[in-house]
Amino acid sequence: MKILLFKDRKYLVRDESKDYHTQFGFLKSADIKKAKPGEVIKSNTGKSFIVIDADFIDLYNKIKRQAQIIPKKDLGLIITETGINKDSIVIESGAGSGAVGTFLAKICKKVYSYEIREDFYNLVKGNIEFLGIKNMKLKNKDAKLGFDEKNVDIIILDLPDPWELVEVAKKSLKPGGFLVSYSPTVPQVMDFIEALDKDFVYLKTCEVIERQWEVKLRKVRPRSQQIGHSGFLSFIRKIN
Amino acid sequence: MKILLFKDRKYLVRDESKDYHTQFGFLKSADIKKAKPGEVIKSNTGKSFIVIDADFIDLYNKIKRQAQIIPKKDLGLIITETGINKDSIVIESGAGSGAVGTFLAKICKKVYSYEIREDFYNLVKGNIEFLGIKNMKLKNKDAKLGFDEKNVDIIILDLPDPWELVEVAKKSLKPGGFLVSYSPTVPQVMDFIEALDKDFVYLKTCEVIERQWEVKLRKVRPRSQQIGHSGFLSFIRKIN
Amino acid sequence: MKILLFKDRKYLVRDESKDYHTQFGFLKSADIKKAKPGEVIKSNTGKSFIVIDADFIDLYNKIKRQAQIIPKKDLGLIITETGINKDSIVIESGAGSGAVGTFLAKICKKVYSYEIREDFYNLVKGNIEFLGIKNMKLKNKDAKLGFDEKNVDIIILDLPDPWELVEVAKKSLKPGGFLVSYSPTVPQVMDFIEALDKDFVYLKTCEVIERQWEVKLRKVRPRSQQIGHSGFLSFIRKIN
Amino acid sequence: MKILLFKDRKYLVRDESKDYHTQFGFLKSADIKKAKPGEVIKSNTGKSFIVIDADFIDLYNKIKRQAQIIPKKDLGLIITETGINKDSIVIESGAGSGAVGTFLAKICKKVYSYEIREDFYNLVKGNIEFLGIKNMKLKNKDAKLGFDEKNVDIIILDLPDPWELVEVAKKSLKPGGFLVSYSPTVPQVMDFIEALDKDFVYLKTCEVIERQWEVKLRKVRPRSQQIGHSGFLSFIRKIN
Repeated sequence: MKILLFKDRKYLVRDESKDYHTQFGFLKSADIKKAKPGEVIKSNTGKSFIVIDADFIDLYNKIKRQAQIIPKKDLGLIITETGINKDSIVIESGAGSGAVGTFLAKICKKVYSYEIREDFYNLVKGNIEFLGIKNMKLKNKDAKLGFDEKNVDIIILDLPDPWELVEVAKKSLKPGGFLVSYSPTVPQVMDFIEALDKDFVYLKTCEVIERQWEVKLRKVRPRSQQIGHSGFLSFIRKIN
Repeated sequence: MKILLFKDRKYLVRDESKDYHTQFGFLKSADIKKAKPGEVIKSNTGKSFIVIDADFIDLYNKIKRQAQIIPKKDLGLIITETGINKDSIVIESGAGSGAVGTFLAKICKKVYSYEIREDFYNLVKGNIEFLGIKNMKLKNKDAKLGFDEKNVDIIILDLPDPWELVEVAKKSLKPGGFLVSYSPTVPQVMDFIEALDKDFVYLKTCEVIERQWEVKLRKVRPRSQQIGHSGFLSFIRKIN
Repeated sequence: MKILLFKDRKYLVRDESKDYHTQFGFLKSADIKKAKPGEVIKSNTGKSFIVIDADFIDLYNKIKRQAQIIPKKDLGLIITETGINKDSIVIESGAGSGAVGTFLAKICKKVYSYEIREDFYNLVKGNIEFLGIKNMKLKNKDAKLGFDEKNVDIIILDLPDPWELVEVAKKSLKPGGFLVSYSPTVPQVMDFIEALDKDFVYLKTCEVIERQWEVKLRKVRPRSQQIGHSGFLSFIRKIN
Repeated sequence: MKILLFKDRKYLVRDESKDYHTQFGFLKSADIKKAKPGEVIKSNTGKSFIVIDADFIDLYNKIKRQAQIIPKKDLGLIITETGINKDSIVIESGAGSGAVGTFLAKICKKVYSYEIREDFYNLVKGNIEFLGIKNMKLKNKDAKLGFDEKNVDIIILDLPDPWELVEVAKKSLKPGGFLVSYSPTVPQVMDFIEALDKDFVYLKTCEVIERQWEVKLRKVRPRSQQIGHSGFLSFIRKIN
């Protein structure tokens, strides 16, 4: 898909066979089709739009969201702390809007994604199609009944009651595999950590805080408003 | 490679043909060789060690470091903010210890890594070998003279004077490609942002703060000591 | 003055000789006058209001503000870091809305407050009267021309260009006196610190971040939104 | 008391009738006695020491500490959030090392301080004398048995089990009085907030984080290491 850029606005062209209408005039279908990345085309009102190819991240930023998603700052640490890579097999539960599963599918070998709610399941299905992802297996199942896969590298829990999944996760993780849980509140973290047994090593619990800055000539300062909290990440390793 | 786990200690076995000595006794080479992941073997003093296969992240945590590296919390956001994935072509400069390049090589299609200092170049070469990475091209070159590659997806700068690389980066980025700069100090960020011209869109500058918690029964609280700062991340996009 | 409390609302009664109207009905002047702290009086619609005496902080929270004021978290550290107390003589410049000066006047011996802008001067004058403060001397003067007082304990600068006041402050501080500057941006801090000479010891620059929590049964977590930044505090001491 | 300054070192002269020995030579008693604030005297090895009068904060920074004290960043917010001032009557329990009580005594009308442990009681007694404080009444009593004072403005709890003091505090606070609790862990905060009844309004719970910066020419950045956590502050108000 192509993106039309006008100043700091981005327009994703989902269908090149139609003219694209913006508040700054419309762009002709034929012009959009012809344009190569980096070229400029003009709207009927004479405004210049730069055309680029949509990257994965452009599409990812447009996926449909119903539930609160795990923000990029947290997803990033999950990847780097556990070393998710092209060879990794990952299970996630629940899928939510699919923001974690779809991102990881673009990085790792295979993602198995469990989602008990049918509305979320359908939402994620749509997002998978929109992103063109082939290596993500989405299941409309209750993860508490067990994961079908064995010997996986990483299991990521984004559930209100992650302590209920500890035994189930243990059965599906390889020795040395990682269990990651994301929870907004402290009592959830406490109950999850208490549910771990001696087959697990508790690595750490942390928050990731992203602090944005203004940098404009001499106006260089942290922004006045900030996201204060999303969730706590707990990292666990299965040892046998 | 195998890892021997004893309580919360981890021992990486680089050479299975030799006995492995620890402060809790030694493990016989033959026992190590035979052990399957999750099995327990005993040291000569009777201590039980669990054997697991080293994951990429286990090896990554053991790479040699001379310079200050970009921590995982920051590397994570670089990945998720720019959407680095299996199809991405990435340039990094300088390589430093190779902590960014080697991690990204396990995720993306190809990493081109520029390092002007010969000692760092050799260090990174060793780390690439140790990690068994095949898709990272390391060059002992001055990046200021230009990158050889064109139309790349992402360029990551970890240099004292990133503003010197803006023009060079522009020539090698595809339209829509990302330029990311990591700098410890505010004046570096200021000078870098001022060096950008209208072919770039400035997305954001931020810090990523990881706050670790103790979670042990009722002792649930942020840790007393914390990493206060590593560096500022600036995200830029080339638009034509 | 009295305060009427209804659930988590607070109504400050500025004139007891009149009935007090709220969206939950009105309270009769006679009832308000008679009520002792902790007593309950009823509105004409039968709602119960608790009457308490307004504390200084209740009035302080109601002072008129035009400029951005130094928040309590920052003002608190100014007090505890410099040890402002009943014997302290303090100069502040500029007064702004008087939020710093009036608070400190309730703690210390005497506050001299300089404000060049007449509109702010009049605003502060009103706030001083409203709070009934007697030991604060407000002057509609340009601080850059010099402070009239000598040998003061603490000088607090809240100005766009604090480096312009360094020499002036030196002349009015006692040996061992504190100079505190509050600035929103990093370049202001840089220029201020560079303007100091060897008659000053630079103690520290810091930010104070207040992170608010929700604590409601199991919903225990930092708030989603947070004040990200107000200003940087720099603490300096004059040594001769 | 006088302070001798040499570069960034501070020496507190507790007894002017004796020579003062430092690693940079000794200063003669007679020279110290004669010196006025801001004057320079020389050690026997020819080093120049600046003499200043010790401020309250200089002495405060030297009080003896056995327990963990409430840091200045937190004490500051207690003062500014509750509006402690010259007219305030404050109770604190427990006294610990007296760091809260002695500071507040220099600001407010009267501090009543309860400390059950005799060793701490004696420590605080020494600190009160050292600081020359006259308006602080220290009691070696169990606060759980009740405070002797009634109608006080502010009660500050720094105890492992603050929920045990809620009823006792209620009896001694005036209507509209503030109850402040300082606790290192989240479960303490949870239990404290749950112990409050409808005679209290829960204002807020927060953490105060002080982030220190390096500012040295172009090396302008947050410090690498930071205090991650001291305690949570909860602010409550009694309404009848």
